[in-house]
Amino acid sequence: MTSTPTPPADRIGVWLIGARGSVATTAIAGAAAVAARLAPPTGMVAELTDFADSGLPALDRLVFGGHDTDDTPLTKRAEQLAGTGILPPALLAAVTPALDAADGEIRPGYRTAPGLPQAAAAARLATDLASFRDRHRLSQVVVINVASTEPPVHPHPAHRDLAALEAAMATEAGILPAGSLYAYAALRADCAHLDFTPSPGIRIPALRELADVQGLPYAGSDGKTGETLVRTALAPMFAHRALRVRSWSGTNLLGGADGATLASPDAAASKNASKRSGLEAMLGAGVEGLTHIDYVPSMGEMKTAWDHIAFEGFLGAAMTMQFTWQGWDSALAAPLVLDLARFLARARQLGAAGPQEQLGFFFKDPLRAGGSTTEHRLIAQFEVLRSWYAGGPQ
Amino acid sequence: MTSTPTPPADRIGVWLIGARGSVATTAIAGAAAVAARLAPPTGMVAELTDFADSGLPALDRLVFGGHDTDDTPLTKRAEQLAGTGILPPALLAAVTPALDAADGEIRPGYRTAPGLPQAAAAARLATDLASFRDRHRLSQVVVINVASTEPPVHPHPAHRDLAALEAAMATEAGILPAGSLYAYAALRADCAHLDFTPSPGIRIPALRELADVQGLPYAGSDGKTGETLVRTALAPMFAHRALRVRSWSGTNLLGGADGATLASPDAAASKNASKRSGLEAMLGAGVEGLTHIDYVPSMGEMKTAWDHIAFEGFLGAAMTMQFTWQGWDSALAAPLVLDLARFLARARQLGAAGPQEQLGFFFKDPLRAGGSTTEHRLIAQFEVLRSWYAGGPQ
Amino acid sequence: MTSTPTPPADRIGVWLIGARGSVATTAIAGAAAVAARLAPPTGMVAELTDFADSGLPALDRLVFGGHDTDDTPLTKRAEQLAGTGILPPALLAAVTPALDAADGEIRPGYRTAPGLPQAAAAARLATDLASFRDRHRLSQVVVINVASTEPPVHPHPAHRDLAALEAAMATEAGILPAGSLYAYAALRADCAHLDFTPSPGIRIPALRELADVQGLPYAGSDGKTGETLVRTALAPMFAHRALRVRSWSGTNLLGGADGATLASPDAAASKNASKRSGLEAMLGAGVEGLTHIDYVPSMGEMKTAWDHIAFEGFLGAAMTMQFTWQGWDSALAAPLVLDLARFLARARQLGAAGPQEQLGFFFKDPLRAGGSTTEHRLIAQFEVLRSWYAGGPQ
Amino acid sequence: MTSTPTPPADRIGVWLIGARGSVATTAIAGAAAVAARLAPPTGMVAELTDFADSGLPALDRLVFGGHDTDDTPLTKRAEQLAGTGILPPALLAAVTPALDAADGEIRPGYRTAPGLPQAAAAARLATDLASFRDRHRLSQVVVINVASTEPPVHPHPAHRDLAALEAAMATEAGILPAGSLYAYAALRADCAHLDFTPSPGIRIPALRELADVQGLPYAGSDGKTGETLVRTALAPMFAHRALRVRSWSGTNLLGGADGATLASPDAAASKNASKRSGLEAMLGAGVEGLTHIDYVPSMGEMKTAWDHIAFEGFLGAAMTMQFTWQGWDSALAAPLVLDLARFLARARQLGAAGPQEQLGFFFKDPLRAGGSTTEHRLIAQFEVLRSWYAGGPQ
Ligand SMILES: NC(=O)c1ccc[n+]([C@@H]2O[C@H](COP(=O)([O-])OP(=O)(O)OC[C@H]3O[C@@H](n4cnc5c(N)ncnc54)[C@H](O)[C@@H]3O)[C@@H](O)[C@H]2O)c1
Ligand SMILES: NC(=O)c1ccc[n+]([C@@H]2O[C@H](COP(=O)([O-])OP(=O)(O)OC[C@H]3O[C@@H](n4cnc5c(N)ncnc54)[C@H](O)[C@@H]3O)[C@@H](O)[C@H]2O)c1
Ligand SMILES: NC(=O)c1ccc[n+]([C@@H]2O[C@H](COP(=O)([O-])OP(=O)(O)OC[C@H]3O[C@@H](n4cnc5c(N)ncnc54)[C@H](O)[C@@H]3O)[C@@H](O)[C@H]2O)c1
Ligand SMILES: NC(=O)c1ccc[n+]([C@@H]2O[C@H](COP(=O)([O-])OP(=O)(O)OC[C@H]3O[C@@H](n4cnc5c(N)ncnc54)[C@H](O)[C@@H]3O)[C@@H](O)[C@H]2O)c1
Ligand code: NA
Ligand code: NA
Repeated sequence: MTSTPTPPADRIGVWLIGARGSVATTAIAGAAAVAARLAPPTGMVAELTDFADSGLPALDRLVFGGHDTDDTPLTKRAEQLAGTGILPPALLAAVTPALDAADGEIRPGYRTAPGLPQAAAAARLATDLASFRDRHRLSQVVVINVASTEPPVHPHPAHRDLAALEAAMATEAGILPAGSLYAYAALRADCAHLDFTPSPGIRIPALRELADVQGLPYAGSDGKTGETLVRTALAPMFAHRALRVRSWSGTNLLGGADGATLASPDAAASKNASKRSGLEAMLGAGVEGLTHIDYVPSMGEMKTAWDHIAFEGFLGAAMTMQFTWQGWDSALAAPLVLDLARFLARARQLGAAGPQEQLGFFFKDPLRAGGSTTEHRLIAQFEVLRSWYAGGPQ
Repeated sequence: MTSTPTPPADRIGVWLIGARGSVATTAIAGAAAVAARLAPPTGMVAELTDFADSGLPALDRLVFGGHDTDDTPLTKRAEQLAGTGILPPALLAAVTPALDAADGEIRPGYRTAPGLPQAAAAARLATDLASFRDRHRLSQVVVINVASTEPPVHPHPAHRDLAALEAAMATEAGILPAGSLYAYAALRADCAHLDFTPSPGIRIPALRELADVQGLPYAGSDGKTGETLVRTALAPMFAHRALRVRSWSGTNLLGGADGATLASPDAAASKNASKRSGLEAMLGAGVEGLTHIDYVPSMGEMKTAWDHIAFEGFLGAAMTMQFTWQGWDSALAAPLVLDLARFLARARQLGAAGPQEQLGFFFKDPLRAGGSTTEHRLIAQFEVLRSWYAGGPQ
Repeated sequence: MTSTPTPPADRIGVWLIGARGSVATTAIAGAAAVAARLAPPTGMVAELTDFADSGLPALDRLVFGGHDTDDTPLTKRAEQLAGTGILPPALLAAVTPALDAADGEIRPGYRTAPGLPQAAAAARLATDLASFRDRHRLSQVVVINVASTEPPVHPHPAHRDLAALEAAMATEAGILPAGSLYAYAALRADCAHLDFTPSPGIRIPALRELADVQGLPYAGSDGKTGETLVRTALAPMFAHRALRVRSWSGTNLLGGADGATLASPDAAASKNASKRSGLEAMLGAGVEGLTHIDYVPSMGEMKTAWDHIAFEGFLGAAMTMQFTWQGWDSALAAPLVLDLARFLARARQLGAAGPQEQLGFFFKDPLRAGGSTTEHRLIAQFEVLRSWYAGGPQ
Repeated sequence: MTSTPTPPADRIGVWLIGARGSVATTAIAGAAAVAARLAPPTGMVAELTDFADSGLPALDRLVFGGHDTDDTPLTKRAEQLAGTGILPPALLAAVTPALDAADGEIRPGYRTAPGLPQAAAAARLATDLASFRDRHRLSQVVVINVASTEPPVHPHPAHRDLAALEAAMATEAGILPAGSLYAYAALRADCAHLDFTPSPGIRIPALRELADVQGLPYAGSDGKTGETLVRTALAPMFAHRALRVRSWSGTNLLGGADGATLASPDAAASKNASKRSGLEAMLGAGVEGLTHIDYVPSMGEMKTAWDHIAFEGFLGAAMTMQFTWQGWDSALAAPLVLDLARFLARARQLGAAGPQEQLGFFFKDPLRAGGSTTEHRLIAQFEVLRSWYAGGPQ
């Protein structure tokens, strides 16, 4: 990253897997509202003055499309979100054209189905991407997975390398979870890929090998928007002050479709693992405490987290800290999806390939290159992000 | 800071203004307990592995003395603190010799008194310092103000430069507040100086001029141990995520002698100003909300802070965060006093003079050189501290 | 209360002092919405099955009017409240006719003005009331003060008895605060009176004498809707379990017009006194702690209270409880205003006169007859209310 | 209960199942300390002035004994409790004689063991009780189960009536869980019985039949000391104000031996069921939310509960309340155990038999007579308790 070429003024495709979900709908509607200056860019990291000279693609240069297995129109989803308080009702009319445009670019999603070998399914998905890029003459397409969380994947020999994977895909129907198949298709279609969900996605070794072969940048996983965001701001405080955290317990209450998904023990396992690992990385092993995710339908899109931290100070003094975080789920996630599309597109413009560690700021469980250790501390992550896009090497 | 000379194995004096207070007593007792390995170094930043190679003076190289206007024996104060839960009763016997030794080095404190010109008072204080250094053959003495909080000082023409100040002190009795007189005496006695309290202390321009003349390092002010500690960990999270903080309100409940002092509106003003300024530096102007400090005698040394933060996210979504911090006041402050003595002594060994900005990590209201802006973000402050003592210039 | 006559089917007037305020507007709009079955009767005590046989006037039998010094149309106020989240925007159209009808019955409010003797002002206010009753052929009118909070009143000799008061009013302009003048006018116009505000209102002895003379029922003061509501539910728990409360501290954050009024130390004094007295009545004297009311404009109609309770248990064990209450101010108050109109009207139908102690459930600072002690415990108050309206003597 | 005979001055036996546990040890030590006036009677309901004339046996009339499967000396347990903050270390010496005396009256506990028919085991337990009563010439013995929580019991035909039960016990080893066998033995030995734990205990129909046959009073179950205590104070506030609770979620963090027991899903099931049922009784069905009990060993005897309540007010306004309760587990429970012994002994003196519903104030899951409904509201329960012991029939 020695030079910073002037970014091309042309347009970037943002292809959302789960394009009809709450996060996706909020992102598409919000991008239109902010681009039209009907709302300030609150929540958008890319709009901070820190990145004014980073050459990020402008918000109005983004073109949206995606895959979804559901077919509720985006305008209907937007109305539902307005009812829950996520989207200001007054904005609905203004963003309808943008929603309709994106709606016309949403193609049927993929679900593991017996019979159909995954190679064929992947080919169809990759064609959708290429067609989108061609029709809109996009300089590149960034694929972002914001679909429902999938359970952790069972290791399979064919996941280990690309050759084995493609051999298996040629005949088998269920070798990859859906999210990983989307990642495969993205890479094959020459697109940068990003997992905003905790799903296995691109983490499978064979897919990372494919990204290397293709020279494509990718990032993930699991957008850091609530409890974990706060944890990564607070945990270093204890560590750097030599305070000994004895236990860190958390309870998350959430309604909404994502809450329902996470209520299944399987899917929660993905989320829980990514939450816990960061805590240990920052505080060392031996921190007691559980993290609960409760589905409380009547809370809708409002996500409430309570965390209790018991710690020891000088001469064993027992102290506690508690926090409660009350946030609108998709309002927290959507601007980050837009940020990530812009930061990842820009990284590709600058020639970056492989795991984009400078994006760790956005993720609960940052993907990294083999051998490097993960920085979970939020503020340190921000400094990495800032300096990377200021043109300095990391 | 181009070279890192091997630190001398000799001993460092730690002279505490307010040596019989809760913080001082806990620091002296705790230093003995940790040096004797009766307690782990929890809460001591200097003992983190980050500073293993920084050449900080070892804990058992510190020799304690001080000034106080009160004459309760340290062992009695330690018993009282054991009763409130700050000092483990089981440690009392083991630390009694150390407390007795320090007790023998506490000299009568100074109180503004009509009649006596401050030059004379300062001379006596400076003599106490020199005598302490000589008798114990200390390589240097660090003076740390942990006395009761004093109100903000009214500007006075004689505060503006050293010549005017010394002219006025020669005849006047009340030109400097007590804490500032101690700072003057420290500098005149060739000691590094540090304000752990929010009192005016060394901030007076004429005193900073004197420090420059003497080539002495100094730092302050107001140890960051509770609500503000958390605020400086959390506020950057909002800023870096482009979340708009609308209000940040706080209520602090404290008993203890320090609580009683802060209950006076005057002294609280010192504390409040230092708390508020940091918030604005991190979040910009226009953040609504008050910060209360309530004296609740029955809470003793337990300090409880509740903070409420209302913020806006994407498309104006209204969200809130709250935290409660429940900590033992002196258990939080005492290890930092020991840390600061060691970091400041080491800085002097390395030839540093003037305001030691790398110590900002420890303070609510970090002293800085003219022209430099204050870094309030806790984690960024830690990185500054770490890299400074790793030998690299900041 | 020996017999329970069938309640007349005719209509009851509800005359609101401060009829254009948030509470009044929400009450008028909400009464219409619930009467039309567009919203469930959530928050309405009178609609509990406990009172199904109490003969309370039905909601659709209430006719609204009032005084206000402001002249913003009610429909405009309703739109503002819809913007803050108090009124569901979808209801606005449906309640417009009801708002317009009430608007036509709002007369100019009274403000203390030099020159005009209060007797004349009172006569005008009483005429407004009588005219309202006559034009709508109401069986009775209940006057409820929901105007801005007024400061505590300075005792004045003329407040002591009715004769002295009327003599003074004949010539003086400022003998009574506005809220008390409204109460005087109400009583003179043969109306039951109720103070929902913490203002002095009917508490002045001469006014209570007038109520006795007229044989009219009255009640107050200061609707119990948030922090105090919770306190009166919780404090008896500590008392009845013999737990010793050492301190009870509270911080209230509120925006809205009422928040601005209470930000003045004078008005806050009214509110604070009523809050503190109940705590002492339930827990005994000697409970430490302050209660803050902070005006935080950006919080709008959302009222947030944090309370911290430190208590001692068996063998001195130190324990704490904290709560946070986040409620919409006028949504909490408005249904109680409607309840009180109905309960007070019914009491008059049953022949009750003087202070209506059975309504203490609704108030922070319940008015009582000389000699009786105040029951502050919420659940005990509910049982009193229930049994009174079940027809049994209290 | 028409007359209130002067209570006999003689002594009452308190036989604790689980006599070496935290609750039991704290109760025995505390009874001695308070009787000797070394500590005030904080936490003791029986010492409230409300019960000054109720004829309750005085604290110094209680004589302690019990069963336990463990054999750690009580003085050792007391030292451990002093280390965790439950017992003031300064009291230890003073209560040692009382602990030693009780220790001498603790007999080996019963554990279900293959081979031994339960009739024989019960006979041994009953003999222990009779011997205790005889040796100390006690007017009566009250048996209180404070042993570790047992899982819910699987229904068994022999539980349905006494004849079937005794037939089965004559030959079978595992027909009753341990706690129920203790209850059987208590009743057979002519002792009133009380379950302070959530274990099945006396709830088995055949045992209730036996109590009727014997004419003995009994009560239970599960002492109400923390989260549920607060819930039963708060939930009626929502109900009586017609506020609609949408969800009530809770997380409990506890260390200590009891915490470890409850960590097993089986035992937690007992506790959870008793917690949930009360909420529904007070608020109606359809309240969403889960209650977690997390074992966090490092928290020791400190029990922390966080509850989050989402409710709706007028016109659907969404509001929330949260509370955090931080209490010392055994300090909360122990005085209630002493209270219950005295209240139950007194009830027997007054001739009461069967389930003592007036003691519902103390329990999460109050035992009641067939056909009567449970009062869960804390303050209403207190009024029942007060009036019952004031001599009036309930
Ligand atoms: N909201 C946050 O703060 C946050 C933070 C981090 C991660 N996430 C993750 O973002 C994802 C989206 O969250 P949401 O609230 O929008 O959820 P959502 O349930 O509203 O939307 C998910 C969408 O994915 C679609 N989908 C499901 N399976 C699919 C498939 N195989 N192919 C294509 N589409 C499919 C669904 O039809 C739905 O439209 C979740 O995985 C969530 O865990 C959200
Ligand atoms: N505890 C914390 O977390 C914390 C954090 C930041 C700053 N501080 C500051 O540290 C200081 C000490 O706190 P503490 O809790 O030990 O208070 P303390 O009241 O227990 O001790 C203060 C001591 O200063 C002495 N003193 C007062 N005036 C003096 C004078 N003129 N000369 C010499 N001695 C004098 C007093 O006699 C007393 O012994 C306070 O200013 C406090 O604001 C404490
Ligand atoms: N909202 C609650 O939960 C709650 C609880 C208890 C008591 N209260 C009390 O209810 C009252 C109303 O609260 P609000 O939020 O509606 O306030 P608001 O400021 O919205 O309304 C007050 C109204 O009173 C009018 N007014 C002021 N002086 C007047 C006068 N002399 N004559 C006639 N009208 C006058 C104002 O013009 C305004 O329309 C306040 O006193 C408040 O303290 C409210
Ligand atoms: N602490 C509270 O606030 C509270 C509230 C309600 C109920 N409880 C209940 O009180 C009980 C005691 O709590 P604790 O904290 O003292 O627990 P603990 O584990 O300290 O004590 C339990 C005691 O029971 C003994 N025991 C186990 N099985 C036995 C058997 N079969 N026969 C005789 N003794 C046996 C154990 O050896 C131990 O000494 C628990 O069931 C708990 O759920 C406690
Ligand atoms: Na909220
Ligand atoms: Na605590």
